[in-house]
Amino acid sequence: MDKIKVTVWSEGLPESQPHAVKSYPNDINTAVADFLRNDPALEITVSSLNMDDCGLSQNLIDNTDVLVWWSHMYHDKVPDEAAERIVTAVLQRGMGLLILHSGLFSKIGTLLLGRCRAGGKYRECGERTRVWVINRAHPIAEGLENDWFDIEYDEMYGEPFGIPTPDDLIFVSWFQGGEVLRSGAAWNRGAGKIFYFQQGHEEFPVYSENKSVQKVITNAVKWLTPTHGPIPVERGEVDALEPIPDALFPERLERVRGKISKRPEPGKYRL
Amino acid sequence: MDKIKVTVWSEGLPESQPHAVKSYPNDINTAVADFLRNDPALEITVSSLNMDDCGLSQNLIDNTDVLVWWSHMYHDKVPDEAAERIVTAVLQRGMGLLILHSGLFSKIGTLLLGRCRAGGKYRECGERTRVWVINRAHPIAEGLENDWFDIEYDEMYGEPFGIPTPDDLIFVSWFQGGEVLRSGAAWNRGAGKIFYFQQGHEEFPVYSENKSVQKVITNAVKWLTPTHGPIPVERGEVDALEPIPDALFPERLERVRGKISKRPEPGKYRL
Amino acid sequence: MDKIKVTVWSEGLPESQPHAVKSYPNDINTAVADFLRNDPALEITVSSLNMDDCGLSQNLIDNTDVLVWWSHMYHDKVPDEAAERIVTAVLQRGMGLLILHSGLFSKIGTLLLGRCRAGGKYRECGERTRVWVINRAHPIAEGLENDWFDIEYDEMYGEPFGIPTPDDLIFVSWFQGGEVLRSGAAWNRGAGKIFYFQQGHEEFPVYSENKSVQKVITNAVKWLTPTHGPIPVERGEVDALEPIPDALFPERLERVRGKISKRPEPGKYRL
Amino acid sequence: MDKIKVTVWSEGLPESQPHAVKSYPNDINTAVADFLRNDPALEITVSSLNMDDCGLSQNLIDNTDVLVWWSHMYHDKVPDEAAERIVTAVLQRGMGLLILHSGLFSKIGTLLLGRCRAGGKYRECGERTRVWVINRAHPIAEGLENDWFDIEYDEMYGEPFGIPTPDDLIFVSWFQGGEVLRSGAAWNRGAGKIFYFQQGHEEFPVYSENKSVQKVITNAVKWLTPTHGPIPVERGEVDALEPIPDALFPERLERVRGKISKRPEPGKYRL
Repeated sequence: MDKIKVTVWSEGLPESQPHAVKSYPNDINTAVADFLRNDPALEITVSSLNMDDCGLSQNLIDNTDVLVWWSHMYHDKVPDEAAERIVTAVLQRGMGLLILHSGLFSKIGTLLLGRCRAGGKYRECGERTRVWVINRAHPIAEGLENDWFDIEYDEMYGEPFGIPTPDDLIFVSWFQGGEVLRSGAAWNRGAGKIFYFQQGHEEFPVYSENKSVQKVITNAVKWLTPTHGPIPVERGEVDALEPIPDALFPERLERVRGKISKRPEPGKYRL
Repeated sequence: MDKIKVTVWSEGLPESQPHAVKSYPNDINTAVADFLRNDPALEITVSSLNMDDCGLSQNLIDNTDVLVWWSHMYHDKVPDEAAERIVTAVLQRGMGLLILHSGLFSKIGTLLLGRCRAGGKYRECGERTRVWVINRAHPIAEGLENDWFDIEYDEMYGEPFGIPTPDDLIFVSWFQGGEVLRSGAAWNRGAGKIFYFQQGHEEFPVYSENKSVQKVITNAVKWLTPTHGPIPVERGEVDALEPIPDALFPERLERVRGKISKRPEPGKYRL
Repeated sequence: MDKIKVTVWSEGLPESQPHAVKSYPNDINTAVADFLRNDPALEITVSSLNMDDCGLSQNLIDNTDVLVWWSHMYHDKVPDEAAERIVTAVLQRGMGLLILHSGLFSKIGTLLLGRCRAGGKYRECGERTRVWVINRAHPIAEGLENDWFDIEYDEMYGEPFGIPTPDDLIFVSWFQGGEVLRSGAAWNRGAGKIFYFQQGHEEFPVYSENKSVQKVITNAVKWLTPTHGPIPVERGEVDALEPIPDALFPERLERVRGKISKRPEPGKYRL
Repeated sequence: MDKIKVTVWSEGLPESQPHAVKSYPNDINTAVADFLRNDPALEITVSSLNMDDCGLSQNLIDNTDVLVWWSHMYHDKVPDEAAERIVTAVLQRGMGLLILHSGLFSKIGTLLLGRCRAGGKYRECGERTRVWVINRAHPIAEGLENDWFDIEYDEMYGEPFGIPTPDDLIFVSWFQGGEVLRSGAAWNRGAGKIFYFQQGHEEFPVYSENKSVQKVITNAVKWLTPTHGPIPVERGEVDALEPIPDALFPERLERVRGKISKRPEPGKYRL
């Protein structure tokens, strides 16, 4: 079986910049790539904002099955064209997208899911967070030993959290300070699948040290691998599949006749 | 009870412009307003792109409980600031939004629901369309006499339709030419509710002549009336509701203490 | 406007019985009825297991718009026929159903939602519970002052909670002991709406003392009021709405012709 | 990799019985098993109502990863204990369940999903049915060549169809006679996944002749393979994960202390 091509992208800015990631000397992309590399089914590429093409060239996107995305302070530095490449890859080709933590508020988050920041409370004192499994039948929960796991120090995000209603709610987090969050949520958009996982923060080395978080991210990457479902062959104005004897504008049926390039051969999909 | 303030907006361009709406001599906004005015609970304002502020001034939006939106050829003529006004009103204040037909592909559609046009097949020969009720418990289906209704001539949109999974699927349409569509779908976003109804096209006088379509739109406007749920009072960094004795950065708890303006008085929400 | 006819049912067994409700000298039905009576739009009937017909006669159900249900220890004492009356009223007539606390595990819970007890952890030491609003656009959250409210002492139920995925998730609870729960969830079934609210326990006087809980239950009762959507007129074998010239068994089309009692008059629902 | 153990069950009654399956001389279980056997990842067992233990012995269920279920006229001949075995296997162990056609109205359908027959219109004249892909990212749509496929002769079921709102809606069918149906729907329940597929009828040899239907069923069986998520270790009354200094009944905390058999070792799931 071919390996799953995973690109792990983060902002990767130098320490001298304000808000550079502190707990990850080689940036978050490297920290995530390091444990993903332990899985022989995955082939990992590390990419970041400070590379050519912002690390999001058309060639790289075309060769990515699953994109892992972490952004925080520099959402706006991602060019519109790069965001469009990603959005198109998800919707049309089914590239999987794993959005971590604050990446939800990036251009690609908004373009794919709509404006998410209706709420927006946070606290970064480093408190205990407990992630509860809501849907234990989901492949992303595969192999977790208990129906919850703890993160000793993490950032709080709280409800009401302005995300679109998840197509599948997999985790809800309990925070020591008294809040809850739908912290693991999946959506289908077009040909693609998206998973959002809130846990992880640039000041707490959650990605490099917490085995359960690593398990969830590894599971998610595999689940996000593109399926090869049907590509809608007809775009724009299409011919009818059934006769319409009483159409108001029958001449328009003539107009589109034969425009459909790919119709099933006679009997092919028929009983 | 106060009347529900409804603003009906459409492109409203002169006939001389290409693609001007043909079946509606006074534009679609007027056609929709005409039947909505029959309901004494509603107070109707008609607005359109060719008015000052594109018919979407801050003052008008502030005085709108439910916005009915029809756009087709001039999505891009709506200024970004006007789109932002609407998006903010939906997410923060709970203004209801009824999106008709091709309005889903407008700026406000994308900002609120994400990029919808993953598919996009259509046919406008004027064929019979039958709208089936999926969720007959929903207030938008209230008073419909049968579990389906017909539209003699309408435009086809077909599945797979690139909308986000509906929070509530109320109608699915059957098309004479052989397609189906999730044609009546509702979502919650932030404080607001959104309903999309696909039926209606600028060349077929569906809005002015089909009683069932009128019933659905009237029901939808009422259902979209804002609720007065809680406004999340805390934004940004917030204090904890419970003690966190073992916080990693306890000084940050001090930092936010007292920032919260509106906390329940002692015992207020307590047992 | 006619008042909404609300029946509040609970087990209502004498104190001498084991597990009789302790914090409610006149049983939970009375405690809930007491605050509902403050709303002039509601007309309240109190009913319980120890009445004739187990307090669930056909006549009472026929005269109920919304049934509030609390059961715990005597699920099995509700006769199958009584459960069927309720299920039929919900599915066919759209009677609203508010299920409180452990009532989810009753016969009607299983018949309407499927077997719910896949999980089932609890703790009744009397701990602080905080109910967070997830969907602040929902009418059930109307008028809540903050985006959360506290209950000083309540019973814990924890995730993974074996309920069917909610059609609408309105509340998630945080428990002091470290768990979370999808505690306010709504479903549509047939013509009816169902709301489950976990808060409240027979040993803690939550229903009689907590104003936010009372607000939620009052809102829920109003939201559960039946809509008058279409009743599917055709049951069993039905005639086609469109010609089927190439049917395999055309004689069967003849068989059902004329069986449909209620078809729209010509043109009625046509454009 | 171990093969997926699939049991295909149908009523399998002799032709002499009324309503015996007509288009399938060796019954539907054999017809489905025949094409599933082409997939080397699957190990197939055929079972039916007329075998010992109704073909649903505890031993067989224990050795089944995915159960394919077809029942129609003899729902009631399945003993309650056999139904319970299946329900338990789905909810607790995550056995996948593929329910075909009328099997939704069986005991296991009701126990897992609730009473489904709120509607119930059908027509069996043998009409053209077109199955549209709604969610093309779903593994069940993998490898379908077009975004729709046709079945030349099939039975119609129509909306409003009394199923619980699907967790995932994958197919909607268009019927020649004018109806639509949510014909491919998935749910999660407890540890298990359920897929319902409406296509197929005892009089039309859909399962043995239609390649797309075979593809969908094969995909579904693979998707239904159990995941190995966490088993909730605590049932009944559980200890708290966090201190509750102000519990109303602190002695109850003592009561359950030490009852939890499987707690994570210190630091195991901690950062």
